[in-house]
Amino acid sequence: MLIHPDRLFPADPGTRTIAKRLYEHVRALPIVSPHGHTQAAWFSRNESFPDPASLFVRPDHYVFRMLYSQGVPLEDLEIGVHETANPRRVWRIFAENYHLFRGTPTRRWLDYAFSELFGMTQRLSAETSDFYFDSISEKLCTPEFRPRALYEQFGIEVLATTDSPLDSLSDHKSLRAGDWKNRIIPTFRPDSVVDPDFEGFASNVDDLGKQTNSDTATWDGYLEALRVSRDRFRELGCTATDHGHPTARTANLSRAEAESLFPRVISGMANPDEKELFRGQMLTEMARMSLEDGLVMQIHAGSERNHNRKLFEKYGRDVGADIPRAMNYVDALGPLLEAFGNEPRLTIILFTLDESVYGRELAPLAGHYPCLRLGPPWWFHDSPEGMARFREHTTETAGFYNTAGFNDDTRAFLSIPGRHDMARRMDCAYLAKLVAEHRLAEDEAYEVAHDLAYRLAKEAYRL
Amino acid sequence: MLIHPDRLFPADPGTRTIAKRLYEHVRALPIVSPHGHTQAAWFSRNESFPDPASLFVRPDHYVFRMLYSQGVPLEDLEIGVHETANPRRVWRIFAENYHLFRGTPTRRWLDYAFSELFGMTQRLSAETSDFYFDSISEKLCTPEFRPRALYEQFGIEVLATTDSPLDSLSDHKSLRAGDWKNRIIPTFRPDSVVDPDFEGFASNVDDLGKQTNSDTATWDGYLEALRVSRDRFRELGCTATDHGHPTARTANLSRAEAESLFPRVISGMANPDEKELFRGQMLTEMARMSLEDGLVMQIHAGSERNHNRKLFEKYGRDVGADIPRAMNYVDALGPLLEAFGNEPRLTIILFTLDESVYGRELAPLAGHYPCLRLGPPWWFHDSPEGMARFREHTTETAGFYNTAGFNDDTRAFLSIPGRHDMARRMDCAYLAKLVAEHRLAEDEAYEVAHDLAYRLAKEAYRL
Amino acid sequence: MLIHPDRLFPADPGTRTIAKRLYEHVRALPIVSPHGHTQAAWFSRNESFPDPASLFVRPDHYVFRMLYSQGVPLEDLEIGVHETANPRRVWRIFAENYHLFRGTPTRRWLDYAFSELFGMTQRLSAETSDFYFDSISEKLCTPEFRPRALYEQFGIEVLATTDSPLDSLSDHKSLRAGDWKNRIIPTFRPDSVVDPDFEGFASNVDDLGKQTNSDTATWDGYLEALRVSRDRFRELGCTATDHGHPTARTANLSRAEAESLFPRVISGMANPDEKELFRGQMLTEMARMSLEDGLVMQIHAGSERNHNRKLFEKYGRDVGADIPRAMNYVDALGPLLEAFGNEPRLTIILFTLDESVYGRELAPLAGHYPCLRLGPPWWFHDSPEGMARFREHTTETAGFYNTAGFNDDTRAFLSIPGRHDMARRMDCAYLAKLVAEHRLAEDEAYEVAHDLAYRLAKEAYRL
Repeated sequence: MLIHPDRLFPADPGTRTIAKRLYEHVRALPIVSPHGHTQAAWFSRNESFPDPASLFVRPDHYVFRMLYSQGVPLEDLEIGVHETANPRRVWRIFAENYHLFRGTPTRRWLDYAFSELFGMTQRLSAETSDFYFDSISEKLCTPEFRPRALYEQFGIEVLATTDSPLDSLSDHKSLRAGDWKNRIIPTFRPDSVVDPDFEGFASNVDDLGKQTNSDTATWDGYLEALRVSRDRFRELGCTATDHGHPTARTANLSRAEAESLFPRVISGMANPDEKELFRGQMLTEMARMSLEDGLVMQIHAGSERNHNRKLFEKYGRDVGADIPRAMNYVDALGPLLEAFGNEPRLTIILFTLDESVYGRELAPLAGHYPCLRLGPPWWFHDSPEGMARFREHTTETAGFYNTAGFNDDTRAFLSIPGRHDMARRMDCAYLAKLVAEHRLAEDEAYEVAHDLAYRLAKEAYRL
Repeated sequence: MLIHPDRLFPADPGTRTIAKRLYEHVRALPIVSPHGHTQAAWFSRNESFPDPASLFVRPDHYVFRMLYSQGVPLEDLEIGVHETANPRRVWRIFAENYHLFRGTPTRRWLDYAFSELFGMTQRLSAETSDFYFDSISEKLCTPEFRPRALYEQFGIEVLATTDSPLDSLSDHKSLRAGDWKNRIIPTFRPDSVVDPDFEGFASNVDDLGKQTNSDTATWDGYLEALRVSRDRFRELGCTATDHGHPTARTANLSRAEAESLFPRVISGMANPDEKELFRGQMLTEMARMSLEDGLVMQIHAGSERNHNRKLFEKYGRDVGADIPRAMNYVDALGPLLEAFGNEPRLTIILFTLDESVYGRELAPLAGHYPCLRLGPPWWFHDSPEGMARFREHTTETAGFYNTAGFNDDTRAFLSIPGRHDMARRMDCAYLAKLVAEHRLAEDEAYEVAHDLAYRLAKEAYRL
Repeated sequence: MLIHPDRLFPADPGTRTIAKRLYEHVRALPIVSPHGHTQAAWFSRNESFPDPASLFVRPDHYVFRMLYSQGVPLEDLEIGVHETANPRRVWRIFAENYHLFRGTPTRRWLDYAFSELFGMTQRLSAETSDFYFDSISEKLCTPEFRPRALYEQFGIEVLATTDSPLDSLSDHKSLRAGDWKNRIIPTFRPDSVVDPDFEGFASNVDDLGKQTNSDTATWDGYLEALRVSRDRFRELGCTATDHGHPTARTANLSRAEAESLFPRVISGMANPDEKELFRGQMLTEMARMSLEDGLVMQIHAGSERNHNRKLFEKYGRDVGADIPRAMNYVDALGPLLEAFGNEPRLTIILFTLDESVYGRELAPLAGHYPCLRLGPPWWFHDSPEGMARFREHTTETAGFYNTAGFNDDTRAFLSIPGRHDMARRMDCAYLAKLVAEHRLAEDEAYEVAHDLAYRLAKEAYRL
């Protein structure tokens, strides 16, 4: 048995019994996935997924960063290669090193998929490597493993992708125009056109201008282009924006200051401080537009991207070399909150990779400002211990109702049910502890469990 | 049943049994409340408390910040209004939103008071709102619910208020002069006359001079005024000072430097660095005076006050918009500790809102310098999880005997027994875990439980 | 009974049973001690240890810092005195204050030694003070309590000391030349010749030049001297270097920049930034040499040494007044990692005193860079709670196999078995929790327990 029915529940028998009761209540709720990195094209084209290595190893930075940390060359895993030359060999390297993932959430997600989706009962290892490869390969060719069939099997109610303003969104259009019943929606992620450090920033802004028939050479035209672009997303069901900034810095410049800063960043003459100031100003501009058009803002701040320059130069972004840094949200969010913090019509969902701010900054802020909600534990903290710490550090100050439910945030479509299952189990485990310690009545815990598994995500993201 | 007799004890039956034994040993000890924000006037006048909304909602920033964070306008709660126009309506808003407090210490304190003081057995909700309002209103009119009767009922041995040097302390004087047996003492909190950023600083200093017949236009006269003022407090039983500074920065300027800085801050010409330096110098001056007169120092550092400027302008201080920030005690306390750190006659009790310093800075400092003691978890961390983390992060380096017992730190008189009860239960829960894991013998745990509940506060505050 | 056979295991009976099974599997494994501060002279001379106070109190900063923090003068403990004048009196002060250590790891280590090595059954206290003193004194005179006999009794497989490049290593030479079977090896700790703030830095470098026949007046000659010195250590079995820097700052200067910086630091003209830059450059030079000669690097960063200047002036280093500070490894390690981070042949073991970086910085870095491993919880965090937090904060991102097993890091030879026992128990407790919560299969847990107790230390340190 790869996964146990009582997995992730507290060991104390009394508490476990409560956790199981709570979990039964939410286990089968539809999946609301308001933030992630799946591809609309998978569903619009509905083609079979390729081989196991291309499904589970090559696209998953959680997987290959661990292998790399133990000396496996990325070349051997065929990272950065368009088509896998030898998927069985890549799979074998992975299988031989599967012990490295002991104690990690990656192992939990993988075992869930192997067991629940592919019916595996033996652990992945050098010995079972080929059996796994062959069994999974075979299943991937069947109609039940096409993206749309899986979407239905997973019980997904709504699935948001993450998209650049420069994206044509053609797959989203096809999905809406077609017969297949789904709710797959885009999310407006404008980093490529608001972050002066993004590769090709100036030409991206130029492209945005052409796409929206706006004169992005001027500050007003640039803002107008973003407004038009947001509308284009909203027409396809989009309810949220997302901002991946190095810090949570915001700014509230005068019109004159912004107008004078804009050409400096577009021309590439801005220094690092000015670029940071511009990103900060753009968060405030996005909040202003959100007050107009109702899009919920997400701020994913605090990752030092591409810390390993040699790998970046060879393989580009997202190769497992993004490292968190210490954050200060209290000062950083000040200007935006001074402008719009008291607006209950605005919703800003905050994420962090620096857990020390949960209790010190984020819970106190979200427990006061009407516009703020806390996103679930993110990235390295999307894990059993990470989820436990999130609730332990935020609930007593911000309560449950200033949090925004769960995000699977995944690039790995097949991990979606396993990830939501982990979150539901961990929230039930936390609630069971509160009930067992008489810190919450059990009838209230049922309601909270349902809210955390389903309702709060829908409400926070206006879905 | 609103509160369970085993609340807050660990779920594991063996550990719970130990916790209950320990708790029985300390449950009924007298309450020592060496730091808080109750009003001497309540006891000197001994008038009935007004309506339930004015007792539980309007003065409690824990309560109304949560309601505000979920979109309830402060106007609807009649915050900042002198007399409640419609207390029943305010109470109903609170009752309808009572679910927001699930999992928070506020809920624990409130349920304790509702159950133990007002005999409620059903949960507060929209349905029970009027019943609560009427029942509580009725009880508040009875002699048993007058402040002095409650003080006695609560088993309070000593209660310290927090007072400005500019306060006449007339209520404290009345209490001492009157017949009613009590030990209600003031605490010297000089922020208004030592913090150049305090509203009206210069005129406050001027008033201090008049009050003490000192020439506060000079550095020497200013220090003398503070000395005289401290004596005035000491004559009324005061044993401690308290300092609410944005950081723990201290300084040890030469006499010439201090003499030249003083007129700059008084005249309002000082820049932010100079103001911070002055605050730091004043902590060192206070320590010097404490060595002379024996008053214990408390440093409550690390809150960014009034983060929400719009609310501050409309409602003033203490409206739930104070947000903690990251702290550095190692450098900040350096100058003061270099001057007086090795003095066992001096006691400085340190508080923090940044839990990351517990194990990194505060426990190592308090486990070395003879003058330092650690105050209990403060404000947002005065909660079950916060108390557990405090012990887990400080005990192994500083032990139990470099901590200073419990502070209820409350503005809500009726929450005092519930707060002390929570602290006693959480300390017993921690000790029970140590005993169950054979990290402490049970006979020693009894002694420690008693020390944490009673003796250490008396000793640290010289009560 | 001073120590319980089930000590440190989780209270939940089911989890405890698993922990006990795992612990039985690793309890008797040989001790690998790759980092610590024992003295080769003890073993080469094999003399009896002196009195109990000189063994347990006077050299142990964990012990005397706690006593000092509660007002015991260091004079009374005869700290800084060469020979104890009144060991029985020092011991009595310690015994009378033994309650101060309740809840601390020091208490666990001491009770382990008292019980398992000296056969004590009653707790140390004022009453038992003399009995302890006499019993221990008597045993210390017996052959079984000589250093070599204890080394064998403890089941030590390999023991690394920590040594200055200026040390003659004569005791290590004697040990290798003699008949007694042992594996006691030196560790190359060059702080005294690479840290410009070290007492006597310039003359230390001068001595290094003489010792190695190198011209340390030039940058090239200085580097050559270090290379020669490392070789001298390697010939005596050394496999690792160790670096005790105030921060983890690294640098990668051009040759010209380094050549110009070197004379400034040697001449004492360097400012604090230049000194910090030099230390950073030297970490990178050490990494470069490690790639050549295979020595494993340890970086012990983040302690503010000698925070209490008055004690430092009177007693010198290591008197319990070193205080941790907040750390940033992400930027600090950048230059070194950019140069050598992708080299699987290099091993750098990172230590921290700032637990907030475990999950935020260290686990993400070690879970990516092939050269990085995480050292065990250090100093104030070498404790039950510290060990639990280390696993809880690092495992999910870095796994078990990017950690480097246990270090006892002790100056107290007699605490070695107790310290390794604590680490083995705490790791088994953590693994048992994972097994009980079905987050790890039990057969895998056995393998991991063995790896953490024995194999990973040997592998990481190339022993």
